[in-house]
This record gives sequence, structure tokens and C-alpha cells, in this order.
Amino acid sequence: MAPGPTPLPPEVIAAAAQQMQFARTPTFVAAQEDAIASLRRVAQTEQGEPLIFAATGSGAMASAVTNLVAPGQKVIMASCGNFGERWVKIAADHGVEVVHLAFAWGSQVDPAAVATAVADHPDAEVVFTTQSETSTGVVNDIKAIREAAGDRIIVVDAVSGFGVVDLPMDAWDIDVIVTGSQKGLMTPPGLGIAIAGPRALERADELGSGGYYFGWKRTLDGQNTGRTPFTPAVSLVFQLQVALARIEAEGLDAVFERHRILGRACREGVRALGLEVLADENPEAGVVTGVLAPSETDGKAIMSQLKAQSQIQVAGGQGDLSGKIFRIGHCGWFSFYDILTTLSALELALAALGRDVEVGAGVSAAQRVMAAAAAG
Amino acid sequence: MAPGPTPLPPEVIAAAAQQMQFARTPTFVAAQEDAIASLRRVAQTEQGEPLIFAATGSGAMASAVTNLVAPGQKVIMASCGNFGERWVKIAADHGVEVVHLAFAWGSQVDPAAVATAVADHPDAEVVFTTQSETSTGVVNDIKAIREAAGDRIIVVDAVSGFGVVDLPMDAWDIDVIVTGSQKGLMTPPGLGIAIAGPRALERADELGSGGYYFGWKRTLDGQNTGRTPFTPAVSLVFQLQVALARIEAEGLDAVFERHRILGRACREGVRALGLEVLADENPEAGVVTGVLAPSETDGKAIMSQLKAQSQIQVAGGQGDLSGKIFRIGHCGWFSFYDILTTLSALELALAALGRDVEVGAGVSAAQRVMAAAAAG
Repeated sequence: MAPGPTPLPPEVIAAAAQQMQFARTPTFVAAQEDAIASLRRVAQTEQGEPLIFAATGSGAMASAVTNLVAPGQKVIMASCGNFGERWVKIAADHGVEVVHLAFAWGSQVDPAAVATAVADHPDAEVVFTTQSETSTGVVNDIKAIREAAGDRIIVVDAVSGFGVVDLPMDAWDIDVIVTGSQKGLMTPPGLGIAIAGPRALERADELGSGGYYFGWKRTLDGQNTGRTPFTPAVSLVFQLQVALARIEAEGLDAVFERHRILGRACREGVRALGLEVLADENPEAGVVTGVLAPSETDGKAIMSQLKAQSQIQVAGGQGDLSGKIFRIGHCGWFSFYDILTTLSALELALAALGRDVEVGAGVSAAQRVMAAAAAG
Repeated sequence: MAPGPTPLPPEVIAAAAQQMQFARTPTFVAAQEDAIASLRRVAQTEQGEPLIFAATGSGAMASAVTNLVAPGQKVIMASCGNFGERWVKIAADHGVEVVHLAFAWGSQVDPAAVATAVADHPDAEVVFTTQSETSTGVVNDIKAIREAAGDRIIVVDAVSGFGVVDLPMDAWDIDVIVTGSQKGLMTPPGLGIAIAGPRALERADELGSGGYYFGWKRTLDGQNTGRTPFTPAVSLVFQLQVALARIEAEGLDAVFERHRILGRACREGVRALGLEVLADENPEAGVVTGVLAPSETDGKAIMSQLKAQSQIQVAGGQGDLSGKIFRIGHCGWFSFYDILTTLSALELALAALGRDVEVGAGVSAAQRVMAAAAAG
């Protein structure tokens, strides 16, 4: 129950359990083209080009900075947690000037602040932000942030939220979506994906190379001719193809709705145990639930107890939140019963740690959310 | 029979056929540490630090350039094929000034030319070259090139030769070895590995960041604390661990000797069919055999015939050699009987293409090489 790498459906495991293929066979090229077409449908874009790198999501994030911004240029970055701040670190590393709108961990990015920054900095041509902030569970209002960004190019880190929370690229006029294989896409880590729209691709072309390994033009040209510039991560691409087929078979709307329900059930269950959820209420926060540790115990003790007592792995807090929170991931191959199991284990863990907890309250609350959802 | 991605031994396939693990579990951290220790033994180094990136070998190559050289600095690059020239492209992309010693495809790098370049360019502090040039089958004399490079830092692309051809890092005073998972290491593509010695790590530290995703210091610090800076490619690392255990169980010397015999058997078999081997005779050329297509047919026709008639996949020529050669890979999980099978298929393919070939001559020649090897 950690927010990535997430569990693999059986057919995704099976896709790795086969002999290796030469990377230039028609079978592999067709699998990659199929995965690319499917990524386009999940991103709800006609013209966006999914670029698949043998790398993790952070590699794809870095590619967005180096392909879209030259050293010395100015950008706006709006963050509200560890991964939003990663944009700023990548930019600093690349010598980019950053107007950093840093919102508190656990709060959302305020679109009004983005609008002000855009007005104040006409020379900042690209805006970077985060859809699902994995370090806190916050899901930002990307539609509103996009509108606030006006005519600027906008790049959205959707590493944990892609295929989990609705993000219609064309309808919302998103220029770039960045994601990774190991969250909502239910594939092992090792694929970083940047889906770049026409304006972004044009800007990258004008800027020249985005770095040898992560150059967008080189990658796109390779994909379009069936010959990636470097050996692709063959087994992972086959697995991604299978995982994407699963998402499409369930249906995009059903996938998004399932995650909304998982998030709601998890939050209600946690609150019924007297614990506080880090992020403000947000119906779209179906990726990961950040839970504030009660004052008398700490997040790491709860994590350890869950692991020792019930063999359930949750994630800890990052940065300043280390020890203060724990995070229950539910992006990808998760059902309501995974939430129910986790809440059950959490009740037992809290009781074992000596906390006065009403046993059954968490699972009951979650059950009521599920019943209401089933009733429509 | 292509030189990568190479076939996976059954236990390496099985290592991928398991449920995903959270990347911070003690089990995964131990597997990664085990793989790192094993890489150090295969590289025959005490102090070299294997840095594992979720990327392909080209990503690890790019990391060596960006971590060791600042834009505007001068380096010496000695190439004799497509992958040697890749160093030059990476350097150009990074704004590095290159003294390029370009030897013809199919010939070796001349160490004397490296010595001259080193003397002529005292300000070129790093020398880049290739151990096994996958585009031609040539294996360079790295010991001699290293001596010719004098006091300079030397970086060796051993993507296809690592774990195939002897390259004792400490004994030969090699500063950096770069490799990938999908050749001699018998693991799916998706891991790029740079093994960096103390002088190289120190230079990289002084230079500052080598790029956000490929920064050596960030990666090393992460590995040393059991927390990689980015999500590692969990399934591939588990597979690498198993593949390395296989190499160590066979024994390094036995692995190197097996590849010498494979190379010799392949060359003798090909020549007995009246075809010419691209690379000059070299007892260490056990990675891939580049075969010149006879004038009356072309390399692509032979490749297609092998695939259609015998379901054997070989690789074509790259760059100017496209169509002029085909390449039989034998690095990794290959035995003598794979060579025998390939030569048999090649005889049938040449006959089917109307070439006057003495059926049985190729397999007999290879068989004699094997018998001599078995006799010691």
C-alpha cells in the first residue's frame, strides 16, 4: 500500500516472464506503437506525442526542463510538496532562473498566485507544476492552474496521478504531461514518459538539444521510424502495453471513479479512528492518503507495526514530514478491499501501540462510503 | 543471435516473474547491494563504485561525459565505429571540444595515435574510447590504450564487452567503465552502469553536478544509504543480481574463455563458407562477429533469409555498413551449439540465395575449433 512502485496485475507480471526479443523486431515495434497509442488515449490527446524513455519519472521530468528551457531563461514553478520542489532542483541544476511559488506541504497550489506570477513575469515562458503531490496526497486543480497560466506553456508532473485522476490534455490545453510506469500505470519502474503537445515540441526544436540521452526530437524521430535512438527497455514496454490495455478495458471514467472512491473510503476510515488526513478534502484526491501521526506515537512506529503485525507496507513522510505522517498509496491496481484490509490493520496497529481506538470504526466508515458508492 | 538485447537465462526470466516490491524494503536494498558487490568483482576492482541508473548504456555513457567534463573543456576520443562515434556526439551535445581520433570502421584504435594526441594536447584531461565496438566486432587493446593515455583519466565504453572480455579495472588502471544490462550481463535492457574509480569520482565532485538525473555524487550517496535518489528499476535490479550470480558461478576466467572460443568458432565457420569477417583477427573478439556480405547478395537479404528459413535473428550493419555486413552476436548466454546452429542456418540461407556454398564446411570448421578447445 505504498504509492509506487505499485503492485502488478498478474498479466503484467506474465508479460515479463518471456524470453527477450531483439529490439528491432516487428513484434516489439508493434508493442511500442500500441503502448504509445494507448498513452495518447489515456491522456485524451490527439496531437500529444508520448515519448518513452528508459528512465524513471524523474528522468522524464528532467527532460521537460532541459528540452524546454535554456540555462539563464526564467520559468515559473508552483509547488506544494517534495515533488513540486524537485522541479526547482532540476531547474537549479540546469542553470534556470526560477520564480518559485512554494505552497506549504499539505496545501494546494493557489491558481491566483500563478496568475499574478504570470502577469509579473512576462519573460517566464514556461510554467511547471504538479498534479498529484505524492509526498502529501494533495491533488491540484490543474484546470484552474492552466487557465491562470494564460498563454504560457504548462508542464504538469502527473507521475503518480496519470491514469488515476482525470487530466484531459487537449480539453484543458496542457502542453506537457510527465509520468512514470510504476504508479497508476501498474508497470515496474524504469519507464519515464513525457507526452508533449505541438507547442512544446516546437519550442524544444527551436531550443536545440535537450541533452543527448533525453533529447525529445531524437526520441520522437526514432519512435516514428520504429527505431528508438537507444535500446528501449523491451520487457518494460511489453508490460506497459499490457497494463494500458487493462486500463482501457476497465474504461477511463471507471478508473477515475474507482480511485475517487478509494480515496474517500480511505480518508473516512482514517478519520473515524481519530486521525487527521494531511491534505484538505478534495474529491479528486484518490492517489495517496497522507495521515498525520497522532502526537503520542509517530509515523515510523505505525509503519513498523503495520509491517510486523499485518505485513502491510505503507510509506513514510518525506523531508520535514518524516516521522510526522505516513502515506497509504492507492493508485493503480487497488480495489476497495485493499483499503478495508489496510484500515483493519491500522486499527489493530494503533491498538497494539496503546492508542485508545474504537476497533471497527475505521472499517465501518469505509464500508459506508463503499455502500453509498454502490447505491450510486 | 543479435548483439543485444541478448537472451535471458531461465532464472533471470523467473526473477521478473514476481510481484513488485516497494523500493525501500530491506529485501530490495540487499539485492541492489549484492548486485553492486558482484559488479565490482566482475570489474576486478576494490575501489571502483558501480553506479546503477534506470537508463540504457547510452545514458551511462552520457553520464560519464557530463560528470567528468564541463562545456568548453577539451577531451580526446578514440573511435573505430558507431559506438565510438557516439562518444563524440554526446560530447558535441554537451559543448565539449573533442580531439577525435577516428579510425576506420572495422579497424582497431591505434594506441600510438592516442599517445601522440595526449602529448599534443596537455589540456585534454580525459580520454574516451571503446572496448568492444559492437558495430563491427572489433575489440580494442584497452591495456595498451590506457598506457598510451599516460596520466589522463580514461573512460572505457564496455557496453557489449563487460562480463565478456577481460577488463581488469584496477590492474590496468582504468578510471571509468561504462556498461549496460542487456549484453554480457544477460538482463533486459533498462539499466545503465558506470563504474567509477577514485580519481574519476573526485573530478566529478569538483566539477559539480553532472546533470540532475545522471549526477554521480547524488547516485552514489543514495546507493550508500540504501535510498537511491530516484525510484530504482526494481525488477531489472533483481534480474541483474541473478544474472551476475550466474557469471560468478561459472567463473570469470571461464566466461572470458568461453567467449574467446565462441568468437573463434564463429569466425572460422564463416570463413569456411567463403565469407570475410569484417574485423581483423583478434583472439579477444568474442563479443560479436561482423560478416561482410558477398558482393552478389547483400547483408539484409541474408538476414531476412535466416529469419524466414530458420527463425534466427542476426543484426544488420549500422551507418555506412548498412546492407554491407551482418552481425552475429555471441555475448552473454550463448554456448558453442548456438554458433553451430547459426552457421548451419547460414549455410542453408546462402544456398537458398543461390550462392555456391559447400554445405557442411562452416559447421565442420567450427566443430574443429571446439574440438581443439576441448582438447586444451
